[in-house]
Amino acid sequence: MYNLQELAQFIDAKLIGDADVRIGSVASAISAKNNQLTYVVNQKYKSDLVSTQAGVVILNHDLLKDCPTNALVVDDVYLAFAQITHYFKKEVTPVNGIHSSAKTGQANIAQNCTIGKGVIIGRNTSIGSNTVIEDNVTVGDNTYIHPNVTILQSCSIGNNVVISPGVVIGSEGFGNARDKDGCWHAIAHLGNVIIGNNVTIGANTTIDRGTLEDTEIHNGVRLDNLIQIAHNVIVGENTAIAASTAIAGSTVLGKRCMIGGMVGIIGHLNICDDVIVNGGSVVDKHIKKPGIYTGIMPLMPHKQWQNIGLWLVKLDKIVKYLNIKLKNLKD
Amino acid sequence: MYNLQELAQFIDAKLIGDADVRIGSVASAISAKNNQLTYVVNQKYKSDLVSTQAGVVILNHDLLKDCPTNALVVDDVYLAFAQITHYFKKEVTPVNGIHSSAKTGQANIAQNCTIGKGVIIGRNTSIGSNTVIEDNVTVGDNTYIHPNVTILQSCSIGNNVVISPGVVIGSEGFGNARDKDGCWHAIAHLGNVIIGNNVTIGANTTIDRGTLEDTEIHNGVRLDNLIQIAHNVIVGENTAIAASTAIAGSTVLGKRCMIGGMVGIIGHLNICDDVIVNGGSVVDKHIKKPGIYTGIMPLMPHKQWQNIGLWLVKLDKIVKYLNIKLKNLKD
Amino acid sequence: MYNLQELAQFIDAKLIGDADVRIGSVASAISAKNNQLTYVVNQKYKSDLVSTQAGVVILNHDLLKDCPTNALVVDDVYLAFAQITHYFKKEVTPVNGIHSSAKTGQANIAQNCTIGKGVIIGRNTSIGSNTVIEDNVTVGDNTYIHPNVTILQSCSIGNNVVISPGVVIGSEGFGNARDKDGCWHAIAHLGNVIIGNNVTIGANTTIDRGTLEDTEIHNGVRLDNLIQIAHNVIVGENTAIAASTAIAGSTVLGKRCMIGGMVGIIGHLNICDDVIVNGGSVVDKHIKKPGIYTGIMPLMPHKQWQNIGLWLVKLDKIVKYLNIKLKNLKD
Repeated sequence: MYNLQELAQFIDAKLIGDADVRIGSVASAISAKNNQLTYVVNQKYKSDLVSTQAGVVILNHDLLKDCPTNALVVDDVYLAFAQITHYFKKEVTPVNGIHSSAKTGQANIAQNCTIGKGVIIGRNTSIGSNTVIEDNVTVGDNTYIHPNVTILQSCSIGNNVVISPGVVIGSEGFGNARDKDGCWHAIAHLGNVIIGNNVTIGANTTIDRGTLEDTEIHNGVRLDNLIQIAHNVIVGENTAIAASTAIAGSTVLGKRCMIGGMVGIIGHLNICDDVIVNGGSVVDKHIKKPGIYTGIMPLMPHKQWQNIGLWLVKLDKIVKYLNIKLKNLKD
Repeated sequence: MYNLQELAQFIDAKLIGDADVRIGSVASAISAKNNQLTYVVNQKYKSDLVSTQAGVVILNHDLLKDCPTNALVVDDVYLAFAQITHYFKKEVTPVNGIHSSAKTGQANIAQNCTIGKGVIIGRNTSIGSNTVIEDNVTVGDNTYIHPNVTILQSCSIGNNVVISPGVVIGSEGFGNARDKDGCWHAIAHLGNVIIGNNVTIGANTTIDRGTLEDTEIHNGVRLDNLIQIAHNVIVGENTAIAASTAIAGSTVLGKRCMIGGMVGIIGHLNICDDVIVNGGSVVDKHIKKPGIYTGIMPLMPHKQWQNIGLWLVKLDKIVKYLNIKLKNLKD
Repeated sequence: MYNLQELAQFIDAKLIGDADVRIGSVASAISAKNNQLTYVVNQKYKSDLVSTQAGVVILNHDLLKDCPTNALVVDDVYLAFAQITHYFKKEVTPVNGIHSSAKTGQANIAQNCTIGKGVIIGRNTSIGSNTVIEDNVTVGDNTYIHPNVTILQSCSIGNNVVISPGVVIGSEGFGNARDKDGCWHAIAHLGNVIIGNNVTIGANTTIDRGTLEDTEIHNGVRLDNLIQIAHNVIVGENTAIAASTAIAGSTVLGKRCMIGGMVGIIGHLNICDDVIVNGGSVVDKHIKKPGIYTGIMPLMPHKQWQNIGLWLVKLDKIVKYLNIKLKNLKD
């Protein structure tokens, strides 16, 4: 808990409002309550600002007149937000072996594991050697966590889940604010990773925690090896994703999708239910209709590719030229 | 060992044959012996069925008349197969440190390693800190296994092999059967990973075990970092694969191939000897002729790409239109 | 330290010069001093040879006349170089827990870590559980290293760095020499990885050590998850790279670049400052001008892609055919 005077000092902001209001956490403008801080980066989000229930909002001077609550006025809102998140990140408790407060009595825990403060592990769940589970993680029943897995603080794993070796759950999202000198300032990601029931996660796959809300892997999802799931991604029920695919931040996948291997999916997209994307494709737009999608350059002998490449990068000019020629000929 | 009555109960099948026949393992229809179970998913594999030596076959009612042995009749063969594999998967023995049955006397084992039951490690082999080696793994002579590696049960590593940190060998393959509600049921992968001599494996690379047969990495192979090798892949002698490449299930690579970085290779393909695939390509067909292959969209300034993209997705229409126009003009 | 007679024996070379000269390490022809060995593979590098200060050079017979110093004459220079690097690689000291020579008094080290001989860790730096840090690594102040990280010998990490779980720093580069039987011989990589200040590194990312010089990650760089940075890559200040991207050996990235997710960058390229590469692209040429670059095959319904693919692989023939037709029509 910090009061507004402290928060204003942390980010060198001008406080407009009640210095004694106390803030316990950070939330989006839409969901924030009166003991929470939020931020509004620009006019585009003005409607979120005017209806916010937050205790305080970080904003620019030009949005101040529309602010219904206390304000922390700064020049660079996103940078100030990035800086202030670090004050709300919980420190991990140092622990040797299994912390005394952890509830692991009905689980099978192998040697050299680290199990943090407040961890709860269900019945008939196995934890492999050298796996590290940080504070306040919960793991359900009949779940099998292999060796050398890392699950970071406050994430939640369901029942009948299999987590393969080398998996990392709850790593920081790749969100950074850039200052006027071009330097990056990391956002401390305050959301968690929530993994449903009957999920399997392949070896060395990484799942980042959300920025403010959670990253969600719904029931029945299958993730293969070496997959990257970024912050705030939601993967719908019974969707299967093959190896080496990467999904960027805040993208939402529907139910029963089948995503091939080495697919790249851009951030902030919506992929509807029952979509199949063939391996090797890059998904750079929303997909609103179930079906099979592909975006792969056909494989060919290298010399042929070199010839085609020459024309390909001039395709727009070629098509326009031919259309003009044809028109002239007709005339 | 289960008798056929037990197996029929596990998967809710109708047993046609001798309930007392005992089954010890699972194999393909072609290789199964009379103490093994197999499955035939549809008419396409009828010739395998009629000549099988298996003790029992899971199949549909319509294949029953062609079955030369005991049968377990179900509606969804692949799903029943997925379910029954779990009864043949061996449990890993819990162990603190080095199991008393492991033969590691001539190896150098660092601290905090877990070495399972029945493991054999050769002369002058080093195992790095925090590495986990499960039951019945064998490792040859003069092999160097770095820290934080995980080698799962019953895999086999040759002589003069280097395994980099974070590698996972023997993870479950990404094979799942879908039931009529769209839920996935994992196949327990009963094959192993067999790694030959003089192989090097880069950091955080993952190699899945085979479904029934083994995944094979032959002598002299070089694997870079963050590579995914799926179940039942075979990589031929002295083939080198650069970083972040992924090879899908059951694909066979020949000898002396050179596969570039971030190449995706679809499953069930055959790539012949002496093939070079340039980095970033997707291989979606068999390659039957040695040579250099490429499938990359040429890099260009983003605005140019946007212009070209507009025509590219209409290329088939453009070509047809121009051909008709040209024909009309000539007439 | 080896004298030239010993070195000649190691690689079965003909020594031309003083057998008693002693060599302590290996360097490039340009930077080598008189107690160092170097190699020159062919005539292309003759100018480096004639001006080298090295104590000895591995070379072919036909370059001998241009050699200003002692020479080790072999048939296959690159293979001999690969073999000899192994004699200069330092062995890692076996250690239980924290080696007595390590300076870690002002750091917070969690359980089951391995901290090697001569390691220096700065003030207020945290090392997570089961992390392995090999001999002679230095880590700065206020750095946070998560659990299950591996940092191999002699690498250097700056201040205010965050290293996520599963990261591997200092793994061997993917450099191999091929002998006349097609067998690969690994080069022992003798360079290190140097990571500046204020760098963040995402989960399961791998950074290889350099061959002779170092791999460098400059101040303020942001690396997301599952990234591959190959040997001798240099990433310039404040450059940010998104997940699952791979950069091949010896490529140099400028400052303030933004590289999207799942980008592949070929080796030995120069990318200038302030370049943005969109996710999913393959960079196969130098980029000399700041700007936004893309090379993605547009995503489309699979049937459309099949139609377009048919024409795409004939694009060169189509364009030539149409140009001839148009010319004929005009005549």
